[in-house]
Amino acid sequence: MTYLDELGEFGLIGRIGKQFSVPRGMTGIGDDCAIIPQKNGMDTLVSTDMLIEGTHFLREDANPYDLGWKSAAVNISDIAAMGGKPVATFLSLALPKDIDTAWVDGFISGYRDLSAVFSCPLLGGDTTASPDRLCINVAVLGECPSGKAKKRGDARPGDLICVTGPLGDSAAGLKVILGGMERDADAEKLVRRHYRPMPRVKEGRALAALDGVHAMMDISDGIGSDLRHILEASGTGAEVDVVAIPLSPELAAVCTREGWDALDCAVSGGEDYELLFTAAPDADLSCIAHTKIGRITKDTALVWKGSGKDFQGFRHF
Amino acid sequence: MTYLDELGEFGLIGRIGKQFSVPRGMTGIGDDCAIIPQKNGMDTLVSTDMLIEGTHFLREDANPYDLGWKSAAVNISDIAAMGGKPVATFLSLALPKDIDTAWVDGFISGYRDLSAVFSCPLLGGDTTASPDRLCINVAVLGECPSGKAKKRGDARPGDLICVTGPLGDSAAGLKVILGGMERDADAEKLVRRHYRPMPRVKEGRALAALDGVHAMMDISDGIGSDLRHILEASGTGAEVDVVAIPLSPELAAVCTREGWDALDCAVSGGEDYELLFTAAPDADLSCIAHTKIGRITKDTALVWKGSGKDFQGFRHF
Repeated sequence: MTYLDELGEFGLIGRIGKQFSVPRGMTGIGDDCAIIPQKNGMDTLVSTDMLIEGTHFLREDANPYDLGWKSAAVNISDIAAMGGKPVATFLSLALPKDIDTAWVDGFISGYRDLSAVFSCPLLGGDTTASPDRLCINVAVLGECPSGKAKKRGDARPGDLICVTGPLGDSAAGLKVILGGMERDADAEKLVRRHYRPMPRVKEGRALAALDGVHAMMDISDGIGSDLRHILEASGTGAEVDVVAIPLSPELAAVCTREGWDALDCAVSGGEDYELLFTAAPDADLSCIAHTKIGRITKDTALVWKGSGKDFQGFRHF
Repeated sequence: MTYLDELGEFGLIGRIGKQFSVPRGMTGIGDDCAIIPQKNGMDTLVSTDMLIEGTHFLREDANPYDLGWKSAAVNISDIAAMGGKPVATFLSLALPKDIDTAWVDGFISGYRDLSAVFSCPLLGGDTTASPDRLCINVAVLGECPSGKAKKRGDARPGDLICVTGPLGDSAAGLKVILGGMERDADAEKLVRRHYRPMPRVKEGRALAALDGVHAMMDISDGIGSDLRHILEASGTGAEVDVVAIPLSPELAAVCTREGWDALDCAVSGGEDYELLFTAAPDADLSCIAHTKIGRITKDTALVWKGSGKDFQGFRHF
């Protein structure tokens, strides 16, 4: 039987994880990053992501600059998700023989420009030939003060659930791209949010410094799915105030014009790379722009409050 | 023009490297690992390698256990090449939908068994679907005492050139596999050396502790190519005593029987993953099994002494 039929992706990860014991003090599979304690009051954070042509992108659609930008961004976002500072990245590139030098230059320019925002150098990698498809892997190292990384499993009943910015822009941008739609300034901004996500490193680090902030992760699959990871890891439930979910004016404008459901983009659309975190009600979060969208409950259900729509669909994970 | 025609692989790496500045104290592209100083007297070492189906292996030839073993081994060997201790690995797997669970289990078993030899845990990674080809990326973290990592560029005129074990077994093993030859015990041992290389971690760490040891790397492409990396990085040349290159009895036996040139396997065949290092003539190397095969010269030529064959062919790199 194929691994997908028998295990599914999450089952596969669990099966792999069971084969390896994690040394005391380290954190392994299951969070946005692994955590390896150093001996100087700092923890090393590590994450890695693979992008395959035909699964994650189509070469004819993807501008190489944007692809390079996004390859670096989604990895650095994993460091932000734990509250860390990115230290260095490592890029593996399998290139089909027909790729031209301009493509490589474009990719590297995008990768470099995003990395420069965070002064995060590329320190190594691997280049190899591919028989046909582009394959990109990035590994990222980060660091944070010892024990301060925020994990998914630390949400507590009574915590507020917050996000650092508007949701749904990236998903709507993808709809604009795939639909080949004409782009006004609003649509263009959504497309840009899809192609050039900006990891919330500054926000993550500020939140990591606050003891009142408990669980944290970045939103890569949409809160309908990602919030569930926090709930499952924490053994809690949540009530989300659907009307409180922040939507950008651009998303509202394009959705109104096209008859799309903005809330659907925001909840089930992924790749916004905003941070999703939980915090004690009395935590002082004034240092960071954020929106409260609900609260953590003792009961393990996930309830979408205040929507005329039935959000049960999101319970299938 | 395609990147390969215009730049070649090494030109590509140089072009990428030029786009990124390396922060002071760190070592980036160009050695077996990047070096990132910690603040506690240790350096973090990082390397990454990508294996693509159709470029690096054929699925029908590769036993999943062996492929898992080798994926971990070649990365841990990069840590050994600098004299470090492996700390953790990170595995990205892009799996075609028709891969079955038994394949995944076999791969992970091989990966786990090699990792267990070095108590090196798998701490994370990425799993994703691939439209067709298997794609494997491993990133490895290691550490060594501050400033003690051995680099490629530190060879000095007068140094002895040494290797930690016999060369050519892996290349001959590959010839046995590709030729579909019948395997006696000797041939079987060569095949095993090809499929299940053993990184020289213990040897690398012992050598890293010796100040008299200067340049070091692991032999992945064959010393005909790898020694050149040391020479170019160090601005030196070398005389290799071809008759001193260590050959296993199994290699000698199979080569005699098949009429193969054992020296050719040893010099131009890769994937032995022995260590190649240079050391001051008065360095006490008694702690480690090794064979002296030549010496570093001020003149930048590479001379193959004592062979009836013309080894000029190896100068084309």
